[in-house]
Amino acid sequence: MLGSTHGSLTTTSRPARVAACGLHPGPAVHGTATDTEEDLDVSGRPLTRDVPDLDRLFRPETVAVIGASDSEGRPNTAITRQLVDWAGRVGARIHPVHPTRTTVFGIPCRPGVRDLPEPIDLAVVLVGDPAPVLEDLARQQVKFAVVFASGFAETGAEGAAAQRRLAAAVRGTATRLLGPNTNLNAFERFRDDLTGPAIALITQSGHQGRPVFALQELGVRVSHWAPTGNEADLECADFVSYFATRPEVGAIAAYVEGIADGRSFLLAADRAARHKVPLVTVKVGRTETGARTAATHTGKLTGADDVVDAAMRQFGVIRVDGLDELQDTATLLARARPPRATGVAVYSISGGTGAHFADLATAAGLELPALSPAKQAELHQWIPEYLSVANPVDNGGHPVGDWRGRKIIDALLADPSVGVLVCPITGPFPPLSDKLAQDLVDAAEKTDKPVCLVWGSPVGTEAAYRSTLLGSSRVTTFRTFANCVGAIRAYFAHHRFTADYRSPFEDAPRSPSPAARKAEQLLRPGEQLSEHAAKQLLRAYGIRVPREQLVTSAAAAVRAAGQVGYPVVMKASGPRLAHKTELGLVRLGLGSASQVRDTYRELCDIARYERLPLDGVLVGQLVPPGVEMAVGITHDRLFGPTVTVGIGGVLMEVLDDTAVRVPPFREEHAREMLGELRGRALLEGVRGAPPADVDALVETVLRVQRMALELGGLAELDVNPLVVLERGQGAVALDALALCR
Amino acid sequence: MLGSTHGSLTTTSRPARVAACGLHPGPAVHGTATDTEEDLDVSGRPLTRDVPDLDRLFRPETVAVIGASDSEGRPNTAITRQLVDWAGRVGARIHPVHPTRTTVFGIPCRPGVRDLPEPIDLAVVLVGDPAPVLEDLARQQVKFAVVFASGFAETGAEGAAAQRRLAAAVRGTATRLLGPNTNLNAFERFRDDLTGPAIALITQSGHQGRPVFALQELGVRVSHWAPTGNEADLECADFVSYFATRPEVGAIAAYVEGIADGRSFLLAADRAARHKVPLVTVKVGRTETGARTAATHTGKLTGADDVVDAAMRQFGVIRVDGLDELQDTATLLARARPPRATGVAVYSISGGTGAHFADLATAAGLELPALSPAKQAELHQWIPEYLSVANPVDNGGHPVGDWRGRKIIDALLADPSVGVLVCPITGPFPPLSDKLAQDLVDAAEKTDKPVCLVWGSPVGTEAAYRSTLLGSSRVTTFRTFANCVGAIRAYFAHHRFTADYRSPFEDAPRSPSPAARKAEQLLRPGEQLSEHAAKQLLRAYGIRVPREQLVTSAAAAVRAAGQVGYPVVMKASGPRLAHKTELGLVRLGLGSASQVRDTYRELCDIARYERLPLDGVLVGQLVPPGVEMAVGITHDRLFGPTVTVGIGGVLMEVLDDTAVRVPPFREEHAREMLGELRGRALLEGVRGAPPADVDALVETVLRVQRMALELGGLAELDVNPLVVLERGQGAVALDALALCR
Repeated sequence: MLGSTHGSLTTTSRPARVAACGLHPGPAVHGTATDTEEDLDVSGRPLTRDVPDLDRLFRPETVAVIGASDSEGRPNTAITRQLVDWAGRVGARIHPVHPTRTTVFGIPCRPGVRDLPEPIDLAVVLVGDPAPVLEDLARQQVKFAVVFASGFAETGAEGAAAQRRLAAAVRGTATRLLGPNTNLNAFERFRDDLTGPAIALITQSGHQGRPVFALQELGVRVSHWAPTGNEADLECADFVSYFATRPEVGAIAAYVEGIADGRSFLLAADRAARHKVPLVTVKVGRTETGARTAATHTGKLTGADDVVDAAMRQFGVIRVDGLDELQDTATLLARARPPRATGVAVYSISGGTGAHFADLATAAGLELPALSPAKQAELHQWIPEYLSVANPVDNGGHPVGDWRGRKIIDALLADPSVGVLVCPITGPFPPLSDKLAQDLVDAAEKTDKPVCLVWGSPVGTEAAYRSTLLGSSRVTTFRTFANCVGAIRAYFAHHRFTADYRSPFEDAPRSPSPAARKAEQLLRPGEQLSEHAAKQLLRAYGIRVPREQLVTSAAAAVRAAGQVGYPVVMKASGPRLAHKTELGLVRLGLGSASQVRDTYRELCDIARYERLPLDGVLVGQLVPPGVEMAVGITHDRLFGPTVTVGIGGVLMEVLDDTAVRVPPFREEHAREMLGELRGRALLEGVRGAPPADVDALVETVLRVQRMALELGGLAELDVNPLVVLERGQGAVALDALALCR
Repeated sequence: MLGSTHGSLTTTSRPARVAACGLHPGPAVHGTATDTEEDLDVSGRPLTRDVPDLDRLFRPETVAVIGASDSEGRPNTAITRQLVDWAGRVGARIHPVHPTRTTVFGIPCRPGVRDLPEPIDLAVVLVGDPAPVLEDLARQQVKFAVVFASGFAETGAEGAAAQRRLAAAVRGTATRLLGPNTNLNAFERFRDDLTGPAIALITQSGHQGRPVFALQELGVRVSHWAPTGNEADLECADFVSYFATRPEVGAIAAYVEGIADGRSFLLAADRAARHKVPLVTVKVGRTETGARTAATHTGKLTGADDVVDAAMRQFGVIRVDGLDELQDTATLLARARPPRATGVAVYSISGGTGAHFADLATAAGLELPALSPAKQAELHQWIPEYLSVANPVDNGGHPVGDWRGRKIIDALLADPSVGVLVCPITGPFPPLSDKLAQDLVDAAEKTDKPVCLVWGSPVGTEAAYRSTLLGSSRVTTFRTFANCVGAIRAYFAHHRFTADYRSPFEDAPRSPSPAARKAEQLLRPGEQLSEHAAKQLLRAYGIRVPREQLVTSAAAAVRAAGQVGYPVVMKASGPRLAHKTELGLVRLGLGSASQVRDTYRELCDIARYERLPLDGVLVGQLVPPGVEMAVGITHDRLFGPTVTVGIGGVLMEVLDDTAVRVPPFREEHAREMLGELRGRALLEGVRGAPPADVDALVETVLRVQRMALELGGLAELDVNPLVVLERGQGAVALDALALCR
């Protein structure tokens, strides 16, 4: 069995190589240059990743401002003022640095970095040419440098080179760099009067993070804001890793335009999944337009969007499209404890509202269990008999206005089938809705089940909304049905995912399989292999191919046919052949020696006419019919090799029905891929056809994954069709195309 | 040619049979009982529909309140007070009616309906048993009666019967009924200080209409609110028809739980489309849960949701899921004039925001044309060179703060490729965003191109939002990217649709085709026809079937084979046969008389063993391979017969890939159906296969539509597979299943 004989590595148990935390630390270093004990998979990609200690970035004891100013009208003055104010609030000692000033805002100013009076946790670099300053800071073992200047990778090749110089200035030193092209967002005013689990925010654009940060004005706690800018050193993945174990963080919200390094991102997401911390992201790049525009903004690449999407799902990252969804989903996931049941109870003061919400909720896959007869009888103590209380529960309005209102809510929350209670209010009517809001807020304090409310009024200045609802950290208030439904769906999905999560990095292969050496000898750098050679590659990995022989004469063809057994298939084989069927280079069902002899000559004639060099003609057994699938390897510029499975044969072109995964992934993920195919019913057997050998298909996918991981010289592989025979009979690669790097 | 020989009827030119409008009208009547000149299609469904004159419902001169009260604590008192206030505001004379009171709120009260001192436009009926009152009102030729009482069709069969009695009380009279189970929404306080095109609102739930009505608080004009309740008489379609030609109405917004009559709804939507008035709806019933819950709320049925969806698309109805989308889409469509270009320009003060919006917009199919080099040069006069102004246009922030801000906006609006300008602001920063908002509001006054803004702050209390933006009727302000993108998409789609709209009712067939009489003789009430009979049905309509004969002896089979030509296909044919292939009752490629003879006996043996009565064995020609499609008729409980086309054969079960239309539809709609199929590439020819005869397929769909319309006795038809041969070769129905009513 592939992939199962290697010892597993529990990444959680490995101590992270973090910088020391004392006030006067020794020179802890980072960067690949000094990695001596790095844990790599067989493809050379890391299986673990250091988690930087960012405590002193967010809560420094000492701050230097390089390029500080207090002259009116200079851009650095406003920034310096904000930093001085912030340092005062958080209790940090601040040290302005400027070559000619003696004080800035009344604080003694030093001419240079070397003149600073004490070890520095955080240096904010406001000068236009930050590279020399960074070198000085690194020499002084400053823990964190934040570089504001723009004009780096976001501007093109020259800027990218300048950015590499910044990265080089701190590589291998104790200094970590945030930026360039970043801002003051990390040092804003955070509300400290809010309690409960918080949202930690990561953004590659200050403007785009603002609405999430502004959630504090709606009573949602935000603990951190990491504006990562161009990510020359510290990247999104570092902040995800750090936030994943901060006790105050309930959810991580990230706005991502480009991912600096695919593997780093996945390792960070894996860490968040292992710690059951939800990571909710907006990732720009659904379309070419978006990806291109984003690249000009932060100078980062985006991978193929379907691969990004798949990779995020593999690691439980919750991807949303809008910043409003990011806010709403992160808020609910930060606040809500793990579900105790999978059902959603919908409770409304209008039958129409309940029906509408129920419709959208069930369409999105949420479960609305019918309440038990006993529970319905209980509810009918307070709700008139003629109203339906099966779920959705319609109270008709009036019971909300008196003592019955709270009874109903408590009865719903006490029901064992209810995991979440939702109350959609589309039209506020103060005599009812104000009381309902207060009852929900009070009830939410007494339960650990999430209580959600939709305040559907577009006005949003109503007192019940502003004071009662936004004053509660136990009720999550939405403004639209769609966002409420989406957040509840993400809530259940997150807890389902993390409940039985096992990191695929744990048993990723570290050393090549015996097949690899044999396979590598078959690769021809820069070339497309012939069908025959590609099939030998598959055979090396234990993937079944038809019994067939490569022959170079008509006589040999007849001999081969006798050996593989009539009727036979004959195909031209050559290094540059594609679209063989269309060219007439594939012949099926040849039943006699004379047919084989004639066919050999015809195939050679066509190849000669089309000027296609052949390495011979394949004479092979006729494989019985089955389900034609396709399995392949492609290369994503962000994540490296990816494995695709899809409906193959003729239908591949018709349906474009594929699923993709980023290695490493496990057998269960290979099975999930099949479930994502629209044409999956083909595998179950249609019109009396027997069910296909899905186990053999999954095994083939895993073997192809192994090839993807350990054959660095293999750029692309396309096994199509892979005929999946009936259950117990296996799967056979009828054709294969392999492109070497 | 089917469907093209009938004279067309221009429904717009036909005078609607409306009630007279004078103060003392003669008894105009309504209801099917008096329809003598109704224009019907061949299926017996109406092709035109009267448009009720609802002026006096919304703006009555005289109002009677039946069951008026001014006693504290009685529910009718609050309603009476609201009606008295409202009558005062709109200048109507109000007449309370109560058996024992002499005055109500100081107004003389009459004991009964017969005692009213003048003709009444509108009677509001607040009594618990409204049927006798309705009869009195009808006798008095009161124009409109509104019945508040509930407990009718929404409660079950008994209530439905009571509701039918209400409808009967006004049928054939001059009185139109609104309700029962409705409320005061039509008589709310509408803002009269707002100008520009308005939203007319129709809802089947008061609570669900509230947020749309509340748009007035955000500066959006709302002209009417029709709360249709149970729709015993006046239904959603009546209000759509009426609003479609009201000059103040820019868009109709409807919240629909159930449709009273499918054809009425489509005729109303057709009228709105002809008058180019957008109809935006939320229609509950995406799922079984939603449909069921909605039915218990208003006692109306919902059709199959995919049919509702298709029907709405056929008539240009814009269907959205959430009330927030309903609000935002209706607002933009009411305000925006027809587009002058199809491009969207995205303008932002942050590169990230522009990239993100552009990504979602292009993913939704909006066009973001690259601005011309000349336009980009113009923009670079005011925007630094290093920022991209190709579209999205990123100004980097600063130019917004001074005189350049307005220049940029005007330059974008002046560009001929720009049809809509969108400015997404996710993080308000007053020094920039306040000025930007004001510039957009000012610029929007000078252009007839729609100007959209997204105010992404979740807070929503900012002055620029509340005062500047909501004070403009020319800028449409959204709160989320998704709703802005969705509304702009609907805007372009609406104008594209209505620009070349031709009503399909115009040339719908009114009398049976010559095929109908022949076909009707083949129907067998309550039975499933044999394959042979079903094929005769198809043949009657000019749909090609294989050359084949039904035989009842082995000798006849051999003779038939000789006549159709070897090799032949043989199939058992009988009235209850389905799944013939699985049972072994279909045999292909029989090449000799002896094979035919043996096969005949085998088929009979199997049928005997399975106890399946046969009407014989079909001996038919072997049809050459082609694309296997399926065409059929099913019956929708809301819209009647529908026509479906899909990928047929084995793939039908795998892909479930179908498109549906509600007749009548035109040839171009039949072509659109094919475009909706995921597997449409099959028809274009894959892997060297020739393109299929799409014209023949479309012609078959139209002939099947004709069958659907004129064969009332045909409950279901399933032609599968319909083999579509290569272009020019036609399409052949290989098998067919027909179920009679």
